[in-house]
Amino acid sequence: MYAISLGDDGAELRPLEPWHAEEFLAHLERGREFIGQYIPFGSGATDVASARAALQKYADQRAADTGSLHGLWLDGKLVGGVLFLNFDAERGNCEVGCWLEPAAAGRGLVTRAARVLVDWAVEERGMHRVEWIAAAANEPSLNVARRLGMRREGVLRQSYPHRGVRHDLEVWAVLAEEWRGRQGA
Amino acid sequence: MYAISLGDDGAELRPLEPWHAEEFLAHLERGREFIGQYIPFGSGATDVASARAALQKYADQRAADTGSLHGLWLDGKLVGGVLFLNFDAERGNCEVGCWLEPAAAGRGLVTRAARVLVDWAVEERGMHRVEWIAAAANEPSLNVARRLGMRREGVLRQSYPHRGVRHDLEVWAVLAEEWRGRQGA
Amino acid sequence: MYAISLGDDGAELRPLEPWHAEEFLAHLERGREFIGQYIPFGSGATDVASARAALQKYADQRAADTGSLHGLWLDGKLVGGVLFLNFDAERGNCEVGCWLEPAAAGRGLVTRAARVLVDWAVEERGMHRVEWIAAAANEPSLNVARRLGMRREGVLRQSYPHRGVRHDLEVWAVLAEEWRGRQGA
Amino acid sequence: MYAISLGDDGAELRPLEPWHAEEFLAHLERGREFIGQYIPFGSGATDVASARAALQKYADQRAADTGSLHGLWLDGKLVGGVLFLNFDAERGNCEVGCWLEPAAAGRGLVTRAARVLVDWAVEERGMHRVEWIAAAANEPSLNVARRLGMRREGVLRQSYPHRGVRHDLEVWAVLAEEWRGRQGA
Amino acid sequence: MYAISLGDDGAELRPLEPWHAEEFLAHLERGREFIGQYIPFGSGATDVASARAALQKYADQRAADTGSLHGLWLDGKLVGGVLFLNFDAERGNCEVGCWLEPAAAGRGLVTRAARVLVDWAVEERGMHRVEWIAAAANEPSLNVARRLGMRREGVLRQSYPHRGVRHDLEVWAVLAEEWRGRQGA
Amino acid sequence: MYAISLGDDGAELRPLEPWHAEEFLAHLERGREFIGQYIPFGSGATDVASARAALQKYADQRAADTGSLHGLWLDGKLVGGVLFLNFDAERGNCEVGCWLEPAAAGRGLVTRAARVLVDWAVEERGMHRVEWIAAAANEPSLNVARRLGMRREGVLRQSYPHRGVRHDLEVWAVLAEEWRGRQGA
Repeated sequence: MYAISLGDDGAELRPLEPWHAEEFLAHLERGREFIGQYIPFGSGATDVASARAALQKYADQRAADTGSLHGLWLDGKLVGGVLFLNFDAERGNCEVGCWLEPAAAGRGLVTRAARVLVDWAVEERGMHRVEWIAAAANEPSLNVARRLGMRREGVLRQSYPHRGVRHDLEVWAVLAEEWRGRQGA
Repeated sequence: MYAISLGDDGAELRPLEPWHAEEFLAHLERGREFIGQYIPFGSGATDVASARAALQKYADQRAADTGSLHGLWLDGKLVGGVLFLNFDAERGNCEVGCWLEPAAAGRGLVTRAARVLVDWAVEERGMHRVEWIAAAANEPSLNVARRLGMRREGVLRQSYPHRGVRHDLEVWAVLAEEWRGRQGA
Repeated sequence: MYAISLGDDGAELRPLEPWHAEEFLAHLERGREFIGQYIPFGSGATDVASARAALQKYADQRAADTGSLHGLWLDGKLVGGVLFLNFDAERGNCEVGCWLEPAAAGRGLVTRAARVLVDWAVEERGMHRVEWIAAAANEPSLNVARRLGMRREGVLRQSYPHRGVRHDLEVWAVLAEEWRGRQGA
Repeated sequence: MYAISLGDDGAELRPLEPWHAEEFLAHLERGREFIGQYIPFGSGATDVASARAALQKYADQRAADTGSLHGLWLDGKLVGGVLFLNFDAERGNCEVGCWLEPAAAGRGLVTRAARVLVDWAVEERGMHRVEWIAAAANEPSLNVARRLGMRREGVLRQSYPHRGVRHDLEVWAVLAEEWRGRQGA
Repeated sequence: MYAISLGDDGAELRPLEPWHAEEFLAHLERGREFIGQYIPFGSGATDVASARAALQKYADQRAADTGSLHGLWLDGKLVGGVLFLNFDAERGNCEVGCWLEPAAAGRGLVTRAARVLVDWAVEERGMHRVEWIAAAANEPSLNVARRLGMRREGVLRQSYPHRGVRHDLEVWAVLAEEWRGRQGA
Repeated sequence: MYAISLGDDGAELRPLEPWHAEEFLAHLERGREFIGQYIPFGSGATDVASARAALQKYADQRAADTGSLHGLWLDGKLVGGVLFLNFDAERGNCEVGCWLEPAAAGRGLVTRAARVLVDWAVEERGMHRVEWIAAAANEPSLNVARRLGMRREGVLRQSYPHRGVRHDLEVWAVLAEEWRGRQGA
């Protein structure tokens, strides 16, 4: 029912929920190899039931106000999404993440969508600090953090085992006052 | 983050969630007497904690896909809302309900909002039948059912105890094919 | 341990509990096709484990005081039963339902048993209203409502999907004062 | 709804359930001092809410088939009861216990009721062994075990702290074949 | 991390936890037939997942302070263990049990380990009574109770079904004052 | 029952469990102001019940293998402790933390105890990476990380609200190969 237009190219952000299981699975099938390079997102969703279970996990987080999942639709097709993780309203901290199928890469979709999330977190929910964490080798993801005006705060060495390799994770973040200053600029 | 414009008067429909507890409580305080005439909606929400608990109940229903709560904002002020109850995607049945503080009555807000819900239920979620249930004496509510093109299917005698009186409940409903025919008209 | 005689033909009403799983399954096997014409009762009980699970669901409802299951034994053989559904002691409303294997039909067993349940609901538990809901085509079931002195209050159009068809559901009910008046007659 | 007559004096055995909370509390108030001599039964039930909570604990055990609570009614007044504890259908073992308000003592009520329970456990549920456990000083309770034809199997020294004293507990039991032999006698 | 030396032969007592699942399973495989003579301990642990599940059950008991599992390691190899069961700190009662693979029998390992447990129960946790329960035919186990200075309090006839036979269970126990007297001797 | 000696001064590391609630509370009372400078540890434990609840949280983590709490006893008095947090055996990552009452500071107790934990995590549990996270102003805590041979990997700006101020958090870590190299040195 709800949708946020992300620009003139028909891109939209919408809540991604358990009843989207079939659509979500079809999207994952198109993007599984690409998405799986650096993150395990959706790797456990291999049929409709497991896709629904994956979405349910996020629906439960939303109910608990600890996270939420938002799909990116391009011309009516689900092509990726952004999400809140480790959303801690009491402490004023949260993390934003993303995933994309390859056909939708290169259009700035994630940056546009993440901007909506960070803005809501800071302006509506009073978050003080928004993090972005990605593998050091995941340049496209780190570039989103850069475009959002975040600063790199550290590198957690060999902290992220994925496909048999322990990756370094970079932690980036933007503070509320930085976000507001930048938006006003 | 999400909002649906309901017209030129600034009315908007948005998800109403636990973090709105303070705003929800303030709204209930303005409308408690009016709202409580025919329904117990919000009657248990008398401070921020109980208001949050009331909203959490709906957040849990949303996670379970059995209901959801949507607030009506007029000029940035929460003035009422519409909700899905007994949402049963497998059987194709659901119920829509509403509440309003008195200052927002008489503008057709609920009808506009309920139309969005029924439309989404039928067109997006494949619901076959959408119900509206209200006390037989609650004319404003029954009028919404009429405006939505629903038909009265029965009267459940003395089925609804409220404030010491057992009220008759009217059951109204619209079927998917009726809804589509009407929208095309 | 407990049993209520329903007449001189040896018919008895007893609590039907998870430990009856094997007996319940054997009964369902005899009646599955007949019972399944209008209701899904027992359709998920296809072996002892699933039969026990079905009975457990009702045992849990009994513990929560929201329902209970009662078997009909004829000459020591389980042949059907009656049940409370949507038992809401606080609101004073409940629903009564039934099922029967074909060999036990035509003896008024369900009417006799349902009378015991309605009487207990009204006289012991203070229920104000007892409902009976059945598919409009399920004449034998609707006849029980008639014999119990209930009134038809409405028809929920196409509200009940069963075996590929959406059935109308009729809602019948008797109020406490009607029940008492009728019993005294 | 269900009741078992225990003789010509109007004594009846019925399921004792959470909705009996007020009646149960009134009974406890009459018997609290007497009942509390050797057992803590009902000691936590000091108002309607805690009485209901105490009964709910047994309702949950019944749903889990690990115990059940049965009240003794004399001339329509709840005066005590018998119960199954540690009911283990898989192992074929269970325990029977009792409590009574003083005005109902001396009539053999508990023995009559316990006989119904043991008989059901052995004949209907296939129990192999039924235990009775009581403080060594609780002569009235141990006499019930004697009358049921149980044998004393041991004394658990200082195993039962009650009102500041550690009591010895006697364990009595009857085996299925003993029970059947005795009943046939 | 924690370990208690049981003597000069390298025997050690350590917490036995879910992460030991593979080691626990290997040990059970060596001892399954021997252990299974009188007790079902570990009989459900037939692969790593079920071994972990079995250990988890005890980990949960430890968290609830109702039991705990302790492995016996001999020269770095898990060969058996002792455990607290029915640990009831409020009532001051608990039970101690054991199991052993055959290669480790005959060294007094269980007696040494059980002594540590009884001592901790009495001296650190204030237990008043520690029980040992074993099948009447399980001489090696009953001998541990004898060596610990326990007294036989009773025989629960045919109370323990195992491998198709109902065994008598002997109940032995030592009281805190007996334990202290004996230790001082 | 279990204890690890940390040196000749009588310092010992033991599991700290819910049954220590009174001892834990007394310790917190002695150290509350000092401990609370940089961390909220124990701040919710203000009577025996809440102290037990705080310890129970860690007991549950231990059962789930996601954390564990270990007390430091000096001459038989609980004076502080170390703990595992965010223990993720599957990913090979965990965090170690600490707290201390002031009278026990300056003896290297935490460093000694943390060494035991890191060593167990790396050698027994196969952890690849152990973290230490503390407020940038908490010099004593950061010095432990230094003494353990950890490296500072980043500073999470204003991420930790405590007593009205948002503190920077420093993330330090040691990798398994670094730990082993250092121990061999």
